[in-house]
Amino acid sequence: MEIPERNKSKLRGPKTYEEEPRRDPSLQINSKEPFNAEPSPFALSRSYITPEDKFYKRNHGPIPVLMEPSTYHLVLTGLVEKPLSLSLEYLRQLPKHVVTATLQCAGNRRTEMSTRRKVKGVGWGAAALGTAAWGGARLSDVLTLAGVPHCTRVTTLGGRHVEFVSCDVCKEEEGGPYKASVPLLHATTPEADILLAYEMNGKDLNRDHGFPLRVVVPGVIGARSVKWLETITVSEFECQGFFMQKDYKMFPPSIDWHNIDWQSRCPLMDFPVQNCGRWSVPVFKAPRLVVLQVNFRGYALAGGGRGIERVDLSVDGGKTWLEAVRLPREHFPGEDHDPQRPNWAWVLWELKYIKIFPPVDVIVKAVDSASNVQPQSVDEIWNLRGVLNNSWHR
Amino acid sequence: MEIPERNKSKLRGPKTYEEEPRRDPSLQINSKEPFNAEPSPFALSRSYITPEDKFYKRNHGPIPVLMEPSTYHLVLTGLVEKPLSLSLEYLRQLPKHVVTATLQCAGNRRTEMSTRRKVKGVGWGAAALGTAAWGGARLSDVLTLAGVPHCTRVTTLGGRHVEFVSCDVCKEEEGGPYKASVPLLHATTPEADILLAYEMNGKDLNRDHGFPLRVVVPGVIGARSVKWLETITVSEFECQGFFMQKDYKMFPPSIDWHNIDWQSRCPLMDFPVQNCGRWSVPVFKAPRLVVLQVNFRGYALAGGGRGIERVDLSVDGGKTWLEAVRLPREHFPGEDHDPQRPNWAWVLWELKYIKIFPPVDVIVKAVDSASNVQPQSVDEIWNLRGVLNNSWHR
Ligand SMILES: [Mo]
Ligand SMILES: [Mo]
Repeated sequence: MEIPERNKSKLRGPKTYEEEPRRDPSLQINSKEPFNAEPSPFALSRSYITPEDKFYKRNHGPIPVLMEPSTYHLVLTGLVEKPLSLSLEYLRQLPKHVVTATLQCAGNRRTEMSTRRKVKGVGWGAAALGTAAWGGARLSDVLTLAGVPHCTRVTTLGGRHVEFVSCDVCKEEEGGPYKASVPLLHATTPEADILLAYEMNGKDLNRDHGFPLRVVVPGVIGARSVKWLETITVSEFECQGFFMQKDYKMFPPSIDWHNIDWQSRCPLMDFPVQNCGRWSVPVFKAPRLVVLQVNFRGYALAGGGRGIERVDLSVDGGKTWLEAVRLPREHFPGEDHDPQRPNWAWVLWELKYIKIFPPVDVIVKAVDSASNVQPQSVDEIWNLRGVLNNSWHR
Repeated sequence: MEIPERNKSKLRGPKTYEEEPRRDPSLQINSKEPFNAEPSPFALSRSYITPEDKFYKRNHGPIPVLMEPSTYHLVLTGLVEKPLSLSLEYLRQLPKHVVTATLQCAGNRRTEMSTRRKVKGVGWGAAALGTAAWGGARLSDVLTLAGVPHCTRVTTLGGRHVEFVSCDVCKEEEGGPYKASVPLLHATTPEADILLAYEMNGKDLNRDHGFPLRVVVPGVIGARSVKWLETITVSEFECQGFFMQKDYKMFPPSIDWHNIDWQSRCPLMDFPVQNCGRWSVPVFKAPRLVVLQVNFRGYALAGGGRGIERVDLSVDGGKTWLEAVRLPREHFPGEDHDPQRPNWAWVLWELKYIKIFPPVDVIVKAVDSASNVQPQSVDEIWNLRGVLNNSWHR
């Protein structure tokens, strides 16, 4: 099979911001170029499936352009017996899987972490996440076409990692593309549900979310779900790109920019139990001695397919707790579902008509299926890159 | 194949404590009948692999007796196409896997939780866990013999759960045997490493640890690793036994014996990040104004195959933190190992020659590979059964 050169595909990553797509004007813009934005907490928790235009946008360069989808080919190469070049049409003919999964930026709630001690990175509120029904071929199936069977730890040629390479132009990569990798066993496990997705919520991916093809790695920080996928390379080593090696790692609070050793830590993958609420009335600013009736709603999620066991809410600063009510989980048409499947998507929860006597101190916190809990404060988990702030939401 | 009646096998669960095995006299006994005991924290952290006699003992009745191993048969029945009866000899001829896995009682550190508010259950210190190299056949392989392929969610006959039934006599089961189940997909996933183990640390299992055959479910609370295994039943429903339905569930602090609804929660499986240290000098009782040099050592672990990212230690009540040094992970002869394997076993860590100025407040805490952290205090996680106390160790 002939493998086209990278520049033969007409998918291109522009160097300037002149060809950006239109976006929903209600988004809160955290950085304009590259475009990084999130919806309001109200818009976010309104529906179980996040509409594409309200789904957070996370970019490291201008949005790639593909004028003629028929020219696109995904190249699968590296330490595999049968390197491949696959058209979109071919990928669409493989068994289609629809997986509802939440993607969360590792920087979600970074701004809250910065209030204690300044961290580096784009500021994000608590809405740098979204839940979509992703449709596409399973990575594990595509790898079998290249001669790599399901549940493989090492290929016959010595490959142990699967690297995803985009076609965008990133400053952090000195003009090169965004990239990331996952271990081969993860990539070749069908139950891990890693998709090469061409659909989001039943429609073709839009440009902001990776048109024509993206990776979706459920249960892992959003940074590994590479958009505008151009090449998959099976390698002996973990991806050496900036976002795997010099970013998105977890450091203890004692490490700052003067004493950092990037090599001492692994790239982040799985993420901890997270939870955020919002309320129908600004309870903090409410006048004293007025009784309010408030509706609370929020999201909770955990990485690694772990589900949410429960969500606790307190309106008295943690003296007493109420258990939130789980809203029904929606199943997208055609979705794979079964009680034994991992929990790749969030839980939306609610507590209605709660009487409060201002001033009150509201806290919401979740427990995951492994009984992991959230830390009380950001002090315990502060880290110089401001990643994975999952402290109690107040 | 002829399936022997339950009472044909000469494995029997006595009703009295007259045939108990000998135990190491250094164990701390938490309950004599049934025998529940743990080693000292010093004995526990001395070696990566816990010697059998120092491994915690957790029982719900008298220890079963099997005089003639040749008479033993494991029965595999229920919603499978080919019910089986397998001798020990037959099981030993199947491919043997050696998996180093830590088993931890869900009640580990219960006594610390009781200091805040009384909980029900056998009191345990911080040594109700141990790490062994378990040798046996994979449950997923044995299930294929019964006609259930790898990675199955439901059998052709509608089975979705795999129940393990012991032969002991438990008061909680009104004289019936101890039992537990796992979902079928978990049971049939080879990478989950669930074993039907006949060896512990290279020797035949001893009576206290399940002779002649036990289940080992890595990454899950010890309560699901059923000892003295007599029957495996594939069922439509989760096991309805006492220890699955009326025990080993996680409740919020607001639930107590007067308002408990057991059906509202799932049986515990996966467990949260845990960590405990011990020190060479009783630093709390040290006289003021004396500078001490102290060695710290401890264990850290997480459920679900998640590894430990790091362990932090403070000798000033949390103002500053030191990162502990990970002791090398030992590999048992014949063990399956590979960097892509899940982390089923603990990390032992150390910090040596730390100068302290009494009085000091020592805290140790760990972070897992999903960036989950431990809760600061038991107040947040107190639960009426006192399970899964993983608060900061002081
Ligand atoms: Mo991100
Ligand atoms: Mo236990």
